[in-house]
Amino acid sequence: MVLMKPGMIMAKEMPKPSIRDDEVLVEVKSVSICGSDIEYYEAGRIGEFVVKEPLILGHESAGLVTEVGKGVDNLKVGDRVAVEPVVGCRKCKYCKTGHYNICPDRTILATPPTNGAFVEYLAHPADHVFKLPDSISYDEGALMEPLSVGIHAGERADVRLGDRVAVLGAGPIGLMAMQVALAMGASEVMITDVVDFRLKKAMDLGASEAINVRRDSIDSYASSFDKVIQASKAPEAFTQAMKLVDRRGRICHVGLLSVEEVPVDLNLITTREFDIVGSFVYVYDYPRAISMVNSGKVKLAPLVSIHFSLDEVEKALRYPKEHPDSCIKTMVTF
Amino acid sequence: MVLMKPGMIMAKEMPKPSIRDDEVLVEVKSVSICGSDIEYYEAGRIGEFVVKEPLILGHESAGLVTEVGKGVDNLKVGDRVAVEPVVGCRKCKYCKTGHYNICPDRTILATPPTNGAFVEYLAHPADHVFKLPDSISYDEGALMEPLSVGIHAGERADVRLGDRVAVLGAGPIGLMAMQVALAMGASEVMITDVVDFRLKKAMDLGASEAINVRRDSIDSYASSFDKVIQASKAPEAFTQAMKLVDRRGRICHVGLLSVEEVPVDLNLITTREFDIVGSFVYVYDYPRAISMVNSGKVKLAPLVSIHFSLDEVEKALRYPKEHPDSCIKTMVTF
Amino acid sequence: MVLMKPGMIMAKEMPKPSIRDDEVLVEVKSVSICGSDIEYYEAGRIGEFVVKEPLILGHESAGLVTEVGKGVDNLKVGDRVAVEPVVGCRKCKYCKTGHYNICPDRTILATPPTNGAFVEYLAHPADHVFKLPDSISYDEGALMEPLSVGIHAGERADVRLGDRVAVLGAGPIGLMAMQVALAMGASEVMITDVVDFRLKKAMDLGASEAINVRRDSIDSYASSFDKVIQASKAPEAFTQAMKLVDRRGRICHVGLLSVEEVPVDLNLITTREFDIVGSFVYVYDYPRAISMVNSGKVKLAPLVSIHFSLDEVEKALRYPKEHPDSCIKTMVTF
Amino acid sequence: MVLMKPGMIMAKEMPKPSIRDDEVLVEVKSVSICGSDIEYYEAGRIGEFVVKEPLILGHESAGLVTEVGKGVDNLKVGDRVAVEPVVGCRKCKYCKTGHYNICPDRTILATPPTNGAFVEYLAHPADHVFKLPDSISYDEGALMEPLSVGIHAGERADVRLGDRVAVLGAGPIGLMAMQVALAMGASEVMITDVVDFRLKKAMDLGASEAINVRRDSIDSYASSFDKVIQASKAPEAFTQAMKLVDRRGRICHVGLLSVEEVPVDLNLITTREFDIVGSFVYVYDYPRAISMVNSGKVKLAPLVSIHFSLDEVEKALRYPKEHPDSCIKTMVTF
Repeated sequence: MVLMKPGMIMAKEMPKPSIRDDEVLVEVKSVSICGSDIEYYEAGRIGEFVVKEPLILGHESAGLVTEVGKGVDNLKVGDRVAVEPVVGCRKCKYCKTGHYNICPDRTILATPPTNGAFVEYLAHPADHVFKLPDSISYDEGALMEPLSVGIHAGERADVRLGDRVAVLGAGPIGLMAMQVALAMGASEVMITDVVDFRLKKAMDLGASEAINVRRDSIDSYASSFDKVIQASKAPEAFTQAMKLVDRRGRICHVGLLSVEEVPVDLNLITTREFDIVGSFVYVYDYPRAISMVNSGKVKLAPLVSIHFSLDEVEKALRYPKEHPDSCIKTMVTF
Repeated sequence: MVLMKPGMIMAKEMPKPSIRDDEVLVEVKSVSICGSDIEYYEAGRIGEFVVKEPLILGHESAGLVTEVGKGVDNLKVGDRVAVEPVVGCRKCKYCKTGHYNICPDRTILATPPTNGAFVEYLAHPADHVFKLPDSISYDEGALMEPLSVGIHAGERADVRLGDRVAVLGAGPIGLMAMQVALAMGASEVMITDVVDFRLKKAMDLGASEAINVRRDSIDSYASSFDKVIQASKAPEAFTQAMKLVDRRGRICHVGLLSVEEVPVDLNLITTREFDIVGSFVYVYDYPRAISMVNSGKVKLAPLVSIHFSLDEVEKALRYPKEHPDSCIKTMVTF
Repeated sequence: MVLMKPGMIMAKEMPKPSIRDDEVLVEVKSVSICGSDIEYYEAGRIGEFVVKEPLILGHESAGLVTEVGKGVDNLKVGDRVAVEPVVGCRKCKYCKTGHYNICPDRTILATPPTNGAFVEYLAHPADHVFKLPDSISYDEGALMEPLSVGIHAGERADVRLGDRVAVLGAGPIGLMAMQVALAMGASEVMITDVVDFRLKKAMDLGASEAINVRRDSIDSYASSFDKVIQASKAPEAFTQAMKLVDRRGRICHVGLLSVEEVPVDLNLITTREFDIVGSFVYVYDYPRAISMVNSGKVKLAPLVSIHFSLDEVEKALRYPKEHPDSCIKTMVTF
Repeated sequence: MVLMKPGMIMAKEMPKPSIRDDEVLVEVKSVSICGSDIEYYEAGRIGEFVVKEPLILGHESAGLVTEVGKGVDNLKVGDRVAVEPVVGCRKCKYCKTGHYNICPDRTILATPPTNGAFVEYLAHPADHVFKLPDSISYDEGALMEPLSVGIHAGERADVRLGDRVAVLGAGPIGLMAMQVALAMGASEVMITDVVDFRLKKAMDLGASEAINVRRDSIDSYASSFDKVIQASKAPEAFTQAMKLVDRRGRICHVGLLSVEEVPVDLNLITTREFDIVGSFVYVYDYPRAISMVNSGKVKLAPLVSIHFSLDEVEKALRYPKEHPDSCIKTMVTF
């Protein structure tokens, strides 16, 4: 399924890919739709990333190993697996010091010019493919991707036992980060959004409190949180984070705001000694994502709102915006 | 109740203490027995700490505020509270940089020459006394002390989401540390001891696995754990910790071994880049201890094995060693 | 010397202060003028801090101990000392965990309503007064205050061996932070300002490069620095910091900008995984400030531009703005 | 030059190696002798590493690039370079999280079964080869290896501005670590050894104090140091480190002791909250090693005691032990 130009996806026959010695071939079974897929589909670009050639979308995927390269020893044919879409160059200073997520030469599935997972067979480096235990479904396997984003954000936020945490935004990443914060020992996690359906989902998944910021003020919570995870696109979210966080608290900015610049009262950073940190995708977080789901500490199944088949990809890409009051995650199954 | 000399405790009438402006008066309700109380009672000393004058034992306590100093604004008469027994000098470099637990001039209740909590009324600095919510009993309030030890150990061990953790020793501190490690996001926690009763208690409280090291070998677990919390007195425990921990893993030594010196293969520290850290009491950990119990993430009630009244203190001090197969914690109630 | 209202300072006779048991009496010898003294003098306020009662200014001071409280054992009469003006409440969570700099109840000399050091005798807690070795003058003793600000900023910036560091602003704090970054092992430190005199001073003190940003572009340095210490008041400085810092780099914001809000491209924080941290005054940094000057690793004498006597305080307060091209620090000596 | 069996090295003709796309060919110019070369030469083994096949020794090397693979863009023919001998597998969890030094599948030049640098031409991955500025000689280039060991140890010791540091052992690693600690901002660095020649060299290179522990007691320095870098082989060195370090201080163990086990009073780790960490080789430390030497903050030339030619390798390997009172580093030049 190839994005030919914004708004137009076509089915194409392609040869089954061959694999290198350090790769495996994965027969794709589930792909969940991410906001970035939708943006590429609608606008053909996300910020600096522009679709110039036809591009296959989809980067949250799970499937079955059907072939393994001769240098591969961590996987075997028949393994059910989740596919980590980010692969570093393995040679630059960022990769060698443990930060392949920001490697300037990394590849990410479904990020131009690298094709994604809306394919029948995907060749991928074996060390970025992780075996799923029987208890975990392919749908959950695909959702290891946004869960890993949430885990990396929880780590960057440095959530500690007993912390009071606020999560801004109850979209997929916010709902992941909220569960992660609880699993890391937060004593309470407040979540905010403007959609009641999402806030209810957050409460069902364990949030201590859920605020609809379109309706209710957060003023009474000023300086109340040790950590704030900012997972919203709303331009005002960062200012809210600065208001909510306590002296010497920490804000983790994992969201990408829908505007280029936001006015910020930077002097507060100095006088209250805030830490503000960014979080981008993940670094070797799939293994613990899988163990968290396996142990039941994080729940992924309740986030799947609807399933589509591969030939309904366009429908699947349009569904979330058309159903904001009932859709968290859309799943494409093969 | 005053320890006159090893093995002899006498009841004494004393005037109700007066409080300073920054203190509160606490009517003691529950005191749990710690191993150090037992050592002072039996031997009159713990290492460098020697009982030279008559000493009141008991440092794990909770009670009711009956009087507040005029400079106190965090508590009021009628508050049910837990008492943190460690108070720093507030002026040295350790205190000013956040490490009052190792302040050379700190006082600790029931550590010579500072008297403890086996009294009817205790005067104590208000900032080291913490209000209990209604959901928490006095018994649990007393047990905030060993729980805070466990929390500090979990922090020093730097338990992270998804870590595999081993806890050596299933005594009170080990059982606290095990629950703390789970609450901090460990994906599995293995615990070891030589007493089956304790290991069963650990499994009831959520341990993933429990090994009786008198009976079973830990060899198959070599290099299997990201973090090891060493909470045992057994001389061989540290060597076990070195064996169990993975490359670049971290050992937190919170136990006090029953021997002065242990032979250690130090070259492993270099070639496997271990971190080995000590953990002594706690630093401002009572608030999160209380919130962990309040939210149900840590359970304290199952650790209380038997109750005694204040005039049975000696019986209470002898009970644990006489009943190793049925006793975790002995509680004295007033 | 009392600030009666903005722009008006009067000499007043006051009784010699008496000291508490934990205090010393310091005969003040040197006080250096800080930008905040000038702001209080000119405008009667700095942000939320408003001068409502007559206020004695001056918080960078050194002098001679003439009296010691009976509980004091770290100092004796005749000691030459530097006075740390920030004192925490010693009881709140911030103080107990090592962050007395952001204690909401801290007192700071010359910050309303606490009087400052333009007095003959100053009573001050002994643990916030530090003995100077003979090699260090009173002028240098007074300058331990801004040096401690620079050290805390260097620590918060987490300068590491071999780091490339940019310091924005070559005022007193910038010049301190630059020397601190070099002492912490930075392999190169670039500094920026709009005043050539300051930039030349920076080069004399060891800067690797100095850019007049009014004249020259910093575009060619984009993403070139591991750490950026933002010590400027210029509204555009933070945007420059975001441009200069490398992926996963760290910006330490120690300056207070002259405007309330600045537009910031927050998405860069996410995609490049920046750390942005605030730095406010210092926490027990005087001892190492003194050892750095004593060992010659940091030089303070070249920062003193001119001396005034106590009765010339108003002249001293006006001098820096009247002589931007020749003045770094103005010193009042007694 | 091939080690055929312990004590016997033979010159052999070998074909010039061909390079892979990501490799460069280096014409070796200088190789410095390390203690491990001497151990392999004398005993044929170091702990678990056993020489089973003929092995080429030498892993501290520098030379001239004579060929570059077609995928290489960081180097070109004619570049003068230092060769980092440790290369990780790039795929395991240690490599991906920034710890390739402890990768179980790493290769290290001159560590069985990987051949070393006593060859005319060496093929090596280009991302582990670093360009030297003109100011740095080939001899200094070879010594980037032990300097990188010292830098990694200084980082693991977490030396901070103003720290008092003790370095145990004034061999090559100790002398590197001492200079690194000073460059990281230590206010004083004491060094110990049993050879006066080495201690004098340390003083020449900037040590604050040098103690011959065979002659003089360190008792008066008990609990005096914030950080201790243990770089000695002497069995008693670790006990000395435990004595010298202050409460909550940190010991970095970079030495490999000459015995398997040492008795340690582990309870001190708990009651004084020590951190004890291992340090093994380095992780991407060559770039800053080069910048430290280039800026003059670390001096390597004074460590070179004598030069030999390639056909005198055996003489070079025997020299250090035969001349303990005059030799720090032996250099083989081509």
